[in-house]
Amino acid sequence: MASQLIECVPNFSEGRRPSVIEALVEPFRRTEGCVLLDHRADPDHNRLVVSLVGQPGPIQEALLQAAQVAKEKIDLETHRGGHPRVGAVDVIPFIPLRNVTMAECVELAHAFGRRYYEETGIPVYFYEEAALRPERRRLEKVRQGQYEALKTLAATEERRPDVGQPKLHPSAGATVIGARKFLIAFNVNLGTDNLEVAQAVARCVRSSSGGLAHVKGIGLALEERGLVQVSMNLVDYEKNALYRVVELIRMEARRWGVEIVETEVYGMIPAAALLDSAAYYLQLAGFQTGQVVELALLEMMGGEG
Amino acid sequence: MASQLIECVPNFSEGRRPSVIEALVEPFRRTEGCVLLDHRADPDHNRLVVSLVGQPGPIQEALLQAAQVAKEKIDLETHRGGHPRVGAVDVIPFIPLRNVTMAECVELAHAFGRRYYEETGIPVYFYEEAALRPERRRLEKVRQGQYEALKTLAATEERRPDVGQPKLHPSAGATVIGARKFLIAFNVNLGTDNLEVAQAVARCVRSSSGGLAHVKGIGLALEERGLVQVSMNLVDYEKNALYRVVELIRMEARRWGVEIVETEVYGMIPAAALLDSAAYYLQLAGFQTGQVVELALLEMMGGEG
Repeated sequence: MASQLIECVPNFSEGRRPSVIEALVEPFRRTEGCVLLDHRADPDHNRLVVSLVGQPGPIQEALLQAAQVAKEKIDLETHRGGHPRVGAVDVIPFIPLRNVTMAECVELAHAFGRRYYEETGIPVYFYEEAALRPERRRLEKVRQGQYEALKTLAATEERRPDVGQPKLHPSAGATVIGARKFLIAFNVNLGTDNLEVAQAVARCVRSSSGGLAHVKGIGLALEERGLVQVSMNLVDYEKNALYRVVELIRMEARRWGVEIVETEVYGMIPAAALLDSAAYYLQLAGFQTGQVVELALLEMMGGEG
Repeated sequence: MASQLIECVPNFSEGRRPSVIEALVEPFRRTEGCVLLDHRADPDHNRLVVSLVGQPGPIQEALLQAAQVAKEKIDLETHRGGHPRVGAVDVIPFIPLRNVTMAECVELAHAFGRRYYEETGIPVYFYEEAALRPERRRLEKVRQGQYEALKTLAATEERRPDVGQPKLHPSAGATVIGARKFLIAFNVNLGTDNLEVAQAVARCVRSSSGGLAHVKGIGLALEERGLVQVSMNLVDYEKNALYRVVELIRMEARRWGVEIVETEVYGMIPAAALLDSAAYYLQLAGFQTGQVVELALLEMMGGEG
């Protein structure tokens, strides 16, 4: 039987202290069967995004070890950063990659969430495909008001955790665990320090205010750089292509006389998302991903999968 | 010891008869250790381009079998097509991929060329890194005047084959065998039927007339489609990026009021070449190929290589 392969992208609320970042990542480096593909700390967001690929068992073991580090080293009472968050370990999504269904990832999320609370005492919300209440499918709904508001709201029926007592952990907050499709974290930096421009552009591009159906986004200030950012999650890159997002933002920003300075893929991205954009701009006709040497080789080596 | 992996891209002078194309490709399908990544027949060029990846031994065996088919089925006396050629098997380049040096590919080309003549009676010219005379490094020099001129010129000291008698095979011509870097065959179709525009644009973009240093190109008519084409080989895609070639052609073609209709990658392309262009157009900053899930996985699976 072919082995199951999942992706997992835990987000931790620490993007500034190198020693803490290294301690968080260390369990993923060390655990066999869990491959650390990438990790990126952002000091503006004060957030660490880790990309893992591997088998479900080893990935869960490493996650529990990293969560103990986060619980010990991160205090939400003093944490500040440009990115919404409710916990020291903020989000843990499980993503099907090979020989795993979405339903199996949902089961995995639920079983892991129960064990996570038992071992850490940090309450858990389930989101996206793993949501137990329809309104919790959307991460931004679960995180509404962030840690500061959820501290009191967790006692209400509407906002109480799915696993654990109706209150947050006093320093580590809560963790949002789920199953979802591959998500691309994509940022577009604009050449102005006017936050309102980023917020206006974010409203144009995100689905919640009438933009592209599978884009979530907010406007942020990158104060250290004197720029603003449209910070996005592309939750279905096959339907909302990267190039379309970029060109829509370019068009909207020009209304304010503002140009795109640069863009950024945060963490991992499937090859198809970038090839699709290359094909658009280069006007490639009749192109197939099997023409890419490395993808053809991977297909050969992948064997029975 | 890690196994050697080469690419090989034999070009055959047949792009129209499906049964002959299938017979040419069949040895590559059948031979274990030789993986047929892609094959593309072009009726305008009347040419078949086959992309193989595998171990040097099996690839050579399959090549000899395909050459016997080509010798039997293709007659250069009656062959017509838009692409320069000197033989039924026109070109065979060996390209280092993994655990093989360029020097080893040159040795391989020389040994294979001698055996090829012994078994097929088709004389051989060596080109690029395998050239035995400096003026034969460039394929266009070896093919100058094509089959029709070389028939008589092969008797001269200047143009005589490197392996075999000083004359061409009476129906299969000659074969040009060599070793080289990865080459991208890239075509840009222009929205006009005026061949002079394609020729003028080709002169602007190719190195031989002052264009980009690692681009070879000619203007061709795509008569069936009422378009013209700048047909190119990008011989060092790391130095002459795809996007730069496209945008230079776009700029030059507009001088004639002509736009790019579409472009085409013919055969295989390394992922880096397309990712580089995606990064340019999307204005990606700080992007690393290790962020691409499939490339990171391939790296993991590649092991000791």
